[in-house]
Amino acid sequence: MSLIVKKFGGSSVADAGKFLSVAKIVADCYRGGCDVAVVVSAPGDTTDDLLERAAEVNPKASRREMDVLLTTGEQMSIALLAMAIEKEGCPVISLLGWQAGFQTDSNYGAARIKKIDADRLRAELDKRNIVVVAGFQGLNKYDDLTTFGRGGSDTSAVALAAALNADRCQIYTDVDGVYTADPRKVKNAKKLDEITYDEMLELATLGAQVLNNRSVEMAKKYNIEIEVLSSVTGAPGTLVREVANMEKMLVRGVTKDVNCARITLIEVPDVPGIAFKVFSRLAAKKINVDIILQSIGRNNTKDIAFTISKENAETAVNTLKESFEEIKNIKCDDNIAKVSVVGAGMETHPGAAAKMFEALYDQNINIQMISTSEIKISVLIDAGDADKAVQSIHDKFLGD
Amino acid sequence: MSLIVKKFGGSSVADAGKFLSVAKIVADCYRGGCDVAVVVSAPGDTTDDLLERAAEVNPKASRREMDVLLTTGEQMSIALLAMAIEKEGCPVISLLGWQAGFQTDSNYGAARIKKIDADRLRAELDKRNIVVVAGFQGLNKYDDLTTFGRGGSDTSAVALAAALNADRCQIYTDVDGVYTADPRKVKNAKKLDEITYDEMLELATLGAQVLNNRSVEMAKKYNIEIEVLSSVTGAPGTLVREVANMEKMLVRGVTKDVNCARITLIEVPDVPGIAFKVFSRLAAKKINVDIILQSIGRNNTKDIAFTISKENAETAVNTLKESFEEIKNIKCDDNIAKVSVVGAGMETHPGAAAKMFEALYDQNINIQMISTSEIKISVLIDAGDADKAVQSIHDKFLGD
Repeated sequence: MSLIVKKFGGSSVADAGKFLSVAKIVADCYRGGCDVAVVVSAPGDTTDDLLERAAEVNPKASRREMDVLLTTGEQMSIALLAMAIEKEGCPVISLLGWQAGFQTDSNYGAARIKKIDADRLRAELDKRNIVVVAGFQGLNKYDDLTTFGRGGSDTSAVALAAALNADRCQIYTDVDGVYTADPRKVKNAKKLDEITYDEMLELATLGAQVLNNRSVEMAKKYNIEIEVLSSVTGAPGTLVREVANMEKMLVRGVTKDVNCARITLIEVPDVPGIAFKVFSRLAAKKINVDIILQSIGRNNTKDIAFTISKENAETAVNTLKESFEEIKNIKCDDNIAKVSVVGAGMETHPGAAAKMFEALYDQNINIQMISTSEIKISVLIDAGDADKAVQSIHDKFLGD
Repeated sequence: MSLIVKKFGGSSVADAGKFLSVAKIVADCYRGGCDVAVVVSAPGDTTDDLLERAAEVNPKASRREMDVLLTTGEQMSIALLAMAIEKEGCPVISLLGWQAGFQTDSNYGAARIKKIDADRLRAELDKRNIVVVAGFQGLNKYDDLTTFGRGGSDTSAVALAAALNADRCQIYTDVDGVYTADPRKVKNAKKLDEITYDEMLELATLGAQVLNNRSVEMAKKYNIEIEVLSSVTGAPGTLVREVANMEKMLVRGVTKDVNCARITLIEVPDVPGIAFKVFSRLAAKKINVDIILQSIGRNNTKDIAFTISKENAETAVNTLKESFEEIKNIKCDDNIAKVSVVGAGMETHPGAAAKMFEALYDQNINIQMISTSEIKISVLIDAGDADKAVQSIHDKFLGD
C-alpha cells in the first residue's frame, strides 16, 4: 500500500465548497487504497486577517504571542477539513503540529524543524485513519507554539513525507505545475513535466512562488519526490526529482523577484575584516543577504553593495548605521527587480549569459548588478523594466 | 502578595479597543502589587462564527473535530490580550488550556476537568509574569483538545483559582453584579452586595446567565470567593461566598429560563422500573433532566412528564421512541418557560409558595408544573407569560 502526503494551500480551502472539494480529492485517493496524510494551510486570507487584528492591538507584539495567534489559522483548517472528510464517510483525525510531533527550535516566526516524532502519526495511519496535519507550526522545547514563516506548510508537508518515508508528496496549488515563466505575464510560457531539485530551488528562491525553497532543500536532502499540481483540475503536474535522463534543455525558466532591496555602503574603509563585520552583524539579525558586490579599493576606501528582502531593508540600514561609525554613507534602493534564467545545462553553455544580456539590450534595459551560479544567471534591473525583461529573455531562450 | 484570578467574557474582548481596556485593568492590578492570572473567552461572536463555518462544511461533524475548531477562539483571545498587556509594558505570557495544565475527561464538547497540573503556571507567576490562560479548553489522556461547553470559561477561572489557591476570583461581565431579577426587564430590580453559593447556584441554573453553574459548584467545593463585576465600570460588584451574618431576606431573586422543553410520555405501562429505564437512557445520552412529574397510575398506565434543555428535545424524543416500543405517545412542548424565586430563607417561610402563586393568579397565568427545593420554588408556564410573571413575582416579594 502506498503512502501519499498531500498539501493544500490557503486558496484551496478558502470557503466551505473548497473544503468539500479537497475532501473529495483526499477521499478518492484513500478509497483507491492509499494511506493518506494531508497538510493544510490557513483558509484564504485568514493569516492576513490575523496579522491585521494583531496590528490593531499592538504593532510591536512579541513574536511568541504572534505565533500563538497565527497558529489558529491552520487549526481551523484541519478541523474543517477533517469534518469535510467525515462527510465523505472516511475515517479521519486532525492533528496540530505538536500532536503530529513537529519539534522545532525557538526562533518564533521562522522556526526550523529539529525532529518529527512520528509515533502518533504512524499509529493513526495504522488504524487506517486519514490524518490531517496543521502545516506551518510546531512546538519548541519549552512546550510553546512556533511557526515556520510564510510558505512553511510546504516545509511541513515535505518533512512529514520524509518522516513517514512516503512514496510521494503532492503539493496542490492554484497553478497546474511549474512553468518556464509566470504564465499570467509571459505569453508562450510552457509547463514543465519534470525538473531537478536544484533547478526548482533556484526557481523558488528567485520568486517563482510555486514551492517554498526550504521545502525543496528538504526534499532534495531526503530524496522525496514532489509533484506540483492543480487542486482544481487534478491533472498531472510537474515532478520535482533527480531526473535520470535529463533532457538537454538549456533553460528551465525565467523568473522575476521584485521583493528585493539593494543596500550600498559607500566609501567604506578598505581594511581587512570589514565585510565579515558587516555581514555577520546582518546574520545576527537573521537577515539573509543575496547578491554581494564589492568594488575595487581606491583612496583606501571601497564600496559594498548587496541585496536583501524588502521587509529587511529598514532593519538592515538601522543596524549598520548603529554598528559602524566608520560607514558614513548608506544608500537603500528598493525600486529594483531581480530577473533570472535557471537551467541545469547552463554552466556548460558559456553563451547563455551573452544571450541573456542581448535580450536585455534589445529592450534597452540597464543592468545594475550581475550574479551567476552553476545553474542560473541573475541580473538586477529597475523594477519597472522587470516584466519586459522576463518576456524578452523568455522569447530569446524559450520562444517557439 | 495576593494572587488574583480575573476572567473576561467574549463581549469584554470583542474588538481591539476592548482588548486594550481589559489589558489596562489587568496591568493596574499587577502594578498594584498583585500576582495576576487572567482567563479569557473567545472574542465577541467568534464561537458562533466558527459554529456556522462548521455547519456549512458538515452539520454532523464529530465532536472531537468541533473542539479542535472551537478552541481557536480562546487561542486568538489569549494571544491578542497578551499583546495588549505587552503594550502596557508588563511582562506577560499566554498559555493554552493544555499548557496551563488543564486535564479533562474525553467528553468532547462538555468535558470535565479532572486535574490541573499547575507547575508551569506557578513557574510563570514566580517569574512575575502575568499569565493569560485560554478558558473553556483542556486536554484529555489521548493528548486531544477538549472543550467544557458554553460558559466553560467561568469554570476555567474558578478551577484555576482553586489550583493556585488564589485570594479571589473576579468574573468580569457586561452587568455590574447579580440582581434580584433581569434589570433590563424588571423595574426596581436591585443589585445584591453578596449572595451565598447555593443561592447563586439556583440563580445560575435557573437562567440568570451571570455565572455558569459548574463554576459556582466548584467555587463552593473549594471555598473560592467569587466577585461578579463590570468590565466597564470596574465598580465593586456582587460577592459570592459563604455569608457569615446572613440578612434575613426572604428572596434573593426572580429568574426565568425559556431554554426548556417539556416531554410528556402518555399512558406508560404502570410497571416497576420504567422510570429508571427512561431516565438512565437519557443519562446515557448525557441529557440532563430538570423537573420530573409522574401522574398517579390508572388503568395500569401512568403519565410521566419532565423538562430538559431545548437543544436536547429532539434527541430525547428520538431516543425514547427507539428504545421503548411500549411508549406509544410522546409529546414535546418547547413553548414554555420556567420562572423561579430563589432565597436561602425560603424553606422556613411556608407562605412563600402561596405568595408566588398569588402573584401568578393576579396576572391570570396558568401553572403547568411546580417544583420546589430548600431555597427555590419553580413553576412552568407558557413562554409568552414569562416576563409578566417575573415582574409580578418580583413586585410581590421585592417591590418597594
